[in-house]
Amino acid sequence: MSEARMLGVLGGMGPLAGATFMQRLTLLTPATRDQDHIPAILWSDPRVPDRTAARLSGGEDPLPWLLRGLRGLEAAGCGAVAIPCNTAHGWFAAMQDATRLPILHIVEAAADELRRLGAHDGRIGLLATKGTLAMRLYQERLEGRGYEVLVPETEEMDRVVMPAIDEVKANRVAEAYAPLAEAATRLVARGARAVVLGCTEIPLGISAGPALPFPVADTIDALARAAIGWAKPAG
Amino acid sequence: MSEARMLGVLGGMGPLAGATFMQRLTLLTPATRDQDHIPAILWSDPRVPDRTAARLSGGEDPLPWLLRGLRGLEAAGCGAVAIPCNTAHGWFAAMQDATRLPILHIVEAAADELRRLGAHDGRIGLLATKGTLAMRLYQERLEGRGYEVLVPETEEMDRVVMPAIDEVKANRVAEAYAPLAEAATRLVARGARAVVLGCTEIPLGISAGPALPFPVADTIDALARAAIGWAKPAG
Repeated sequence: MSEARMLGVLGGMGPLAGATFMQRLTLLTPATRDQDHIPAILWSDPRVPDRTAARLSGGEDPLPWLLRGLRGLEAAGCGAVAIPCNTAHGWFAAMQDATRLPILHIVEAAADELRRLGAHDGRIGLLATKGTLAMRLYQERLEGRGYEVLVPETEEMDRVVMPAIDEVKANRVAEAYAPLAEAATRLVARGARAVVLGCTEIPLGISAGPALPFPVADTIDALARAAIGWAKPAG
Repeated sequence: MSEARMLGVLGGMGPLAGATFMQRLTLLTPATRDQDHIPAILWSDPRVPDRTAARLSGGEDPLPWLLRGLRGLEAAGCGAVAIPCNTAHGWFAAMQDATRLPILHIVEAAADELRRLGAHDGRIGLLATKGTLAMRLYQERLEGRGYEVLVPETEEMDRVVMPAIDEVKANRVAEAYAPLAEAATRLVARGARAVVLGCTEIPLGISAGPALPFPVADTIDALARAAIGWAKPAG
């Protein structure tokens, strides 16, 4: 049997984002038949405790669940791991310490996507969970590259962004479009030249309506491109 | 950790069908938050040799690859297996003999879906691969339930249906709509009251265009409903 490199996907956070990651991984891969596609295992465990609640309000620690999934992906023979959940990257160092498999970092992938969109520096907007904002997962990495990161006001996070993310997790994807489009548009009005959809539920909501009239960095697609780059290195 | 029943999904045949199965499993599950969704592992190995070629033209045997995936899903702790590939069900008995996990049968799920659509007997149409037709996977099971199964002519299989399935596997999903809609419509013109989309690439193509004006049994959705019934038994 051919020993092509198999990708591990630690998903389920949420499950629709993980499934859509697999779909985009497939659709973005140059292929003319099944056998050209990338072998992958999706470990979709939606029981992982809520990442934002763990960081901000003393909720159950997700790390044991994340490590359980990593061990499963190792045992299955995977050669690297992609995690289509931005907030889970708050536990990146602990996860990377616990596995010999390289973990592709979703914020690095998002930074590559911003460059692909032509946004090489300056103001960019960030829509993400309160957990991701509080942990400064994007700010730390993007400010070092010359970006200024704008985020919604706290009031707007509570009233608009977090409820829209919950709509997607509850399968009400279409209902999430208007509030997310509103929040992204407000960041552009404040001077952002592009908006990072820095929670994997957000591109699902944004894809449910008309395209926005400014560049958005979809972190599901960004991570899928990083995974394809790992599985099929150019040259 | 909660020991909810975890579903194993033997996918990758093709990979877009497996990913879409995960998406439909999620969207068809009643849920208000991540933790209400069904834990699942998708073993997406698109390297499994082509099932129709194995049956009809002496291609490589897919069974060792199918068993490898089943062993992986067993090792990961799954409690049952769904296989979103109709043609792979030609190896159902050998797979079921090789694992202690129950395998949900996609043809049984399709028969349940036909009843859900109100088609309890009489003529139904079947679009599937040449391998599935040659193995009579549907005819054997549906004729015993009082259905008469109409299939496309051999010429139409070669000119229209098989090339459309290959378009989906090559990520040209939109291009598959017109030929598949044409083939389904012809079955209805011959007297079918509903059409079974009996290859998991076919609902992907059919979903890429306007809804057809007759009932279709989507075998991705049918298998997802069977899996939800296994994971969350009513009552």
